Amino acid sequence: MRLLLIVGLLLLPLSLSATSLSVTSPDGKISLTLDDASLTYQVQFNGKQVIAPSQLGFRFLQLPAMASGYKIVGHSRSSADTQWQQPWGERETVRDQHNELAVSLSHPQRQAPFTLRFKVFNDGLGFRYEVPPQGVDKLDIIDELTEFRISDSQHTTAWWIPGRGWNRYEMLYRTTPLHELDRAHTPVTFKRPDGVYLSIHEAALVDFAAMVLDQQRDGVLKSDLTPWSDGIRVKTPGSFITPWRTLQIADTAVGLLNSDLILNLNEPNKLGDVSWVKPGKYAGIWWGMHLGTETWGSGDKHGATTDNAKRYIDFAAEHGFDGVLVEGWNIGWDGEWFLNGAVFNFTQTYPDFDLAAVSAYGAKKGVKLVGHHETSGHISNYEAQMAAAYDLYATHGVSQIKTGYVADGGQATRIDENGIERKEWHDGQLMVNHYLYSVQEAAKRQISINTHEPIKDTGLRRTYPNWITREGARGQEYNAWGSPPNPPEHTAMLPFTRMLSGPMDYTPGIFNLAYNGLDAENRVQGTLAKELALYVVLYSPIQMVADLPEHYDAHSEAFQFIKDVPTDWVQSIALQGEVGDFVVFARQDKHSKDWFLGALTDEFPRKISVKLDFLASGQRYTAQIYRDAATTDWRTRPYDMIIEQQQVTANDKMILPLAASGGVAIRFKAH
Amino acid sequence: MRLLLIVGLLLLPLSLSATSLSVTSPDGKISLTLDDASLTYQVQFNGKQVIAPSQLGFRFLQLPAMASGYKIVGHSRSSADTQWQQPWGERETVRDQHNELAVSLSHPQRQAPFTLRFKVFNDGLGFRYEVPPQGVDKLDIIDELTEFRISDSQHTTAWWIPGRGWNRYEMLYRTTPLHELDRAHTPVTFKRPDGVYLSIHEAALVDFAAMVLDQQRDGVLKSDLTPWSDGIRVKTPGSFITPWRTLQIADTAVGLLNSDLILNLNEPNKLGDVSWVKPGKYAGIWWGMHLGTETWGSGDKHGATTDNAKRYIDFAAEHGFDGVLVEGWNIGWDGEWFLNGAVFNFTQTYPDFDLAAVSAYGAKKGVKLVGHHETSGHISNYEAQMAAAYDLYATHGVSQIKTGYVADGGQATRIDENGIERKEWHDGQLMVNHYLYSVQEAAKRQISINTHEPIKDTGLRRTYPNWITREGARGQEYNAWGSPPNPPEHTAMLPFTRMLSGPMDYTPGIFNLAYNGLDAENRVQGTLAKELALYVVLYSPIQMVADLPEHYDAHSEAFQFIKDVPTDWVQSIALQGEVGDFVVFARQDKHSKDWFLGALTDEFPRKISVKLDFLASGQRYTAQIYRDAATTDWRTRPYDMIIEQQQVTANDKMILPLAASGGVAIRFKAH
Repeated sequence: MRLLLIVGLLLLPLSLSATSLSVTSPDGKISLTLDDASLTYQVQFNGKQVIAPSQLGFRFLQLPAMASGYKIVGHSRSSADTQWQQPWGERETVRDQHNELAVSLSHPQRQAPFTLRFKVFNDGLGFRYEVPPQGVDKLDIIDELTEFRISDSQHTTAWWIPGRGWNRYEMLYRTTPLHELDRAHTPVTFKRPDGVYLSIHEAALVDFAAMVLDQQRDGVLKSDLTPWSDGIRVKTPGSFITPWRTLQIADTAVGLLNSDLILNLNEPNKLGDVSWVKPGKYAGIWWGMHLGTETWGSGDKHGATTDNAKRYIDFAAEHGFDGVLVEGWNIGWDGEWFLNGAVFNFTQTYPDFDLAAVSAYGAKKGVKLVGHHETSGHISNYEAQMAAAYDLYATHGVSQIKTGYVADGGQATRIDENGIERKEWHDGQLMVNHYLYSVQEAAKRQISINTHEPIKDTGLRRTYPNWITREGARGQEYNAWGSPPNPPEHTAMLPFTRMLSGPMDYTPGIFNLAYNGLDAENRVQGTLAKELALYVVLYSPIQMVADLPEHYDAHSEAFQFIKDVPTDWVQSIALQGEVGDFVVFARQDKHSKDWFLGALTDEFPRKISVKLDFLASGQRYTAQIYRDAATTDWRTRPYDMIIEQQQVTANDKMILPLAASGGVAIRFKAH
Repeated sequence: MRLLLIVGLLLLPLSLSATSLSVTSPDGKISLTLDDASLTYQVQFNGKQVIAPSQLGFRFLQLPAMASGYKIVGHSRSSADTQWQQPWGERETVRDQHNELAVSLSHPQRQAPFTLRFKVFNDGLGFRYEVPPQGVDKLDIIDELTEFRISDSQHTTAWWIPGRGWNRYEMLYRTTPLHELDRAHTPVTFKRPDGVYLSIHEAALVDFAAMVLDQQRDGVLKSDLTPWSDGIRVKTPGSFITPWRTLQIADTAVGLLNSDLILNLNEPNKLGDVSWVKPGKYAGIWWGMHLGTETWGSGDKHGATTDNAKRYIDFAAEHGFDGVLVEGWNIGWDGEWFLNGAVFNFTQTYPDFDLAAVSAYGAKKGVKLVGHHETSGHISNYEAQMAAAYDLYATHGVSQIKTGYVADGGQATRIDENGIERKEWHDGQLMVNHYLYSVQEAAKRQISINTHEPIKDTGLRRTYPNWITREGARGQEYNAWGSPPNPPEHTAMLPFTRMLSGPMDYTPGIFNLAYNGLDAENRVQGTLAKELALYVVLYSPIQMVADLPEHYDAHSEAFQFIKDVPTDWVQSIALQGEVGDFVVFARQDKHSKDWFLGALTDEFPRKISVKLDFLASGQRYTAQIYRDAATTDWRTRPYDMIIEQQQVTANDKMILPLAASGGVAIRFKAH
């Protein structure tokens, strides 16, 4: 079914008294009400108020605020129940079922009415502002007034990372009563005292500043748009359409994970045929630099040599991986590279790296070179070279580039029109536009982008499917040098927080878990089985096989799972889980009838009972199970693993025993 | 001794290579070093680094940043050891002993060198930027780069309140490892793992935005200047002098309390003869509104009636208090008064309040009417009426006004030159200027200002002694309706945090501790003796006698202490204490030879042993002691109090027994 029903698109004239309008979800459980006099909205779920009356609006530099005194002068309603296909993703087919309300609001002393558009789904809602030309040729937004008022901030739990300051999102998630949250990046996850889960985020962040949530007073979370360096929040030509402000609502924690709300609020694919965007797995010259055994810069320990790249290509070819990432291949890394933004050259290689030779060698072996551009956040330098740099890679058959924006002090650098160096936040309007510009320029050359130190994901992969993955949270590298490294709960936290926004390039698969010894603080704080589970739990259409090739030799049986696990799915189901505690995912391979399951836990061991009713009915499967042993202990015996087989059908149930910070990975091979 | 030594005022030319310059405290324990190439400074205390190399500088809208590439082109040194007198204060005579270093820094591509001026005292240091005209007629500061890098953020404790958002500073102080601080208002108090205490704040905040501390990454606290509504941090005419950025350093927690650093970094009194500024005690029509038994607005429960005011005047006259505050006397309170900013009329009384009659009645009884102006943060409305409003009060002999800025959403309101309503932070440049303007306008009429919902104190009472006190933290009223009310540790926290900045109008002296019953959450969470101790512990030159007159009758013996305790001191000494745990203060009356002691504790009872060696040697005293009894329990028996006398001299020692959330108050009456 493509389109069930569209009704009520005409504007209905209304009386001039204060008015409320409501819109409910298709299943009737969620209800949103707009009040025009106060310009506030509120949200009910199952008859309970989950968002108390909350302000809407903006303040501008050139015009009076859009805040109150408005009248509804018209509205339209529509309903949709459609399906659309993803070129790649957690699932092939996405259902978009929602009720829509578009309200036209007018103010006696202002020009042109504006529109508030609400879409209410069974799993949450989104709304956005559509502001037509206001009779000025420049309209600067200096504050967004949108609030999310959550009552009982003392007894609502929030999972969050601090907003702004250090803004690559690479912080440990905090678990606190809501009232202890000061300012947080979205998505922010909440659990109300009645057990209802919420997530506040945004969708389709384009030509706008990111919404950070600022707790103005207990329970009042207000949009705090990240400013430009000159303090303006958003620069518009006099009219604008905002991203969608989103609220996901679920009865269970995994309910948030099984939601497609963010994708449904993005525009369809604008790139046409994207068969050139290829999910897959890649190895690469990367982990050695984090361990300190190799360097990005030139010298004796330079990682990106032609010989080393060929060795990795051999490794990838032998095991069936699609690509090899090479970091540190280009001029600019010497010295303190995170200060080298203006120095990086994206077309000149170090003398010991032969780009043509390496890519030709890869082509012969069926392995693609994965490109790499570290900018240190100097976007003027990068944009000046971008066309030439992407052309160069395209010439050599590179179809994916990992970009990096490690900026000292957390802000990107640009040179403005007067030659003045400016520092800009990663999530301000300028950088939002820069990141998308990079993706669009890459698309012209059939190149996919994997952004590190990115703008947060807001579902733009639907519109630009070559934005294939990104970082945007603490990844594996913190285990090498982070202080502290990622604690056992971290990967049980990510699915319920960061990953509500989209795929993450966590770079799993470290097999040499304790490179400095079991007692060293900096090591992988988990078991080998958990490292396998990450490939199923932390969704990304491209997954790294992150460790050094030689480290896989010691555990070749476990390595088989990494070779077998796909990265593209017909369907994904979060079966069980609690935020920061544990999670169980089942996913169906897109290129076979196989299913895969991944489960992992925080610092507590647990036994999880899983019904296999997600499997195809009547189909027999061999479950290839990689699990913690009774002797497994992430601190002392992290490598202990039982690999066993079991014959199962959809009628069976499995008991999954997870060690502390352990995991389990299963391939259900269809007969 | 007025001035010991001034040396080295000439500019010393230096070579053009990278240069470091140091300046040490008079006792040699503190050393600050400036490096010109990186434009960084660092601080040592007793040979240990307490501030790691930290950035200095600014970013501007119109010019390149002041951040690096500078050369020292001259410097001057001076030393001072002087004393100055306070018209009122914690002590009569303040010693100002410091070494000063002024460094002239030049950049090859920039105009006019700027000066960094450092003053290093035995109890800490301050520095400021002095930027001469830069060849532009407008220079907007868009970021201050000043950092305070505190190493070991995992093991340093920070006591702090969140910065911005809700910005009247009325939040409970948090005790966390430093790395959990996101953004905090100053002063922020720290304890390093080696036991050294630090406080970061600023002095002489004039025509500038407040410095908020933002933790950019672990341990790196950066100045985050509060912006104007248009995003600019500070607007200057092309040149500017900043407030002093201050660092207090002490071996003990009470060392921070005994420091005069903030006052020493302010300019001397600019008002000349200020004998008209009168410390003292006041009662008032106030607490009934917080309890809900009276209203600010008109109607049956209107508190500010002529009769009620006369009743309070009788009460004050009977017990020797100086003034009576009347809140709710003027038109504008009806409805949701915190939204009434544009409505308040500061010269028109409600019909049931006769300003002339009340002030005349007070004059006859020797009691002054204390004025009150609630603005709800609408400063355009207030400034338009300010001259007339102050004139009116002056006409009626009012010499103190309590002002209020309760602004909905935490931001003040102004109407800009284009008629657009703007929302401005309480601590942005505009409001910093507004608050001082109010004080200056009041001074012209010999009126003192007690600002509620103020800009934080930065020691300007030295320059403008009619800025007599202010709020700027959670006061007593939170016990009436706060959620939660002030917990037992709160008043043990304030001296080490908020009150490092200056006096606070906490409004102590609630005797009916549990107006809704002992089990109610909203009550005073302490003992009656603790309520007395507040008058000594929480310094303010004017102290309220905050409860309803009738509530003092039940405890007339305890009430005697409030009648006896002065509010102006020859000397004050913080004897013992730990942040948020307990504190003991001794203060010497300015108008007698008496000393007073106040001690209070958090939720833990404790016995404190105090040597009385602060008393005058050879002098005999009768100690009039108001203390918790063995039976006292703040939850069930908060009123149990022992009042006893003891003959003591400076050679004696006293053991002070404090109940949980208890206190002790002592008058040492000199024979």
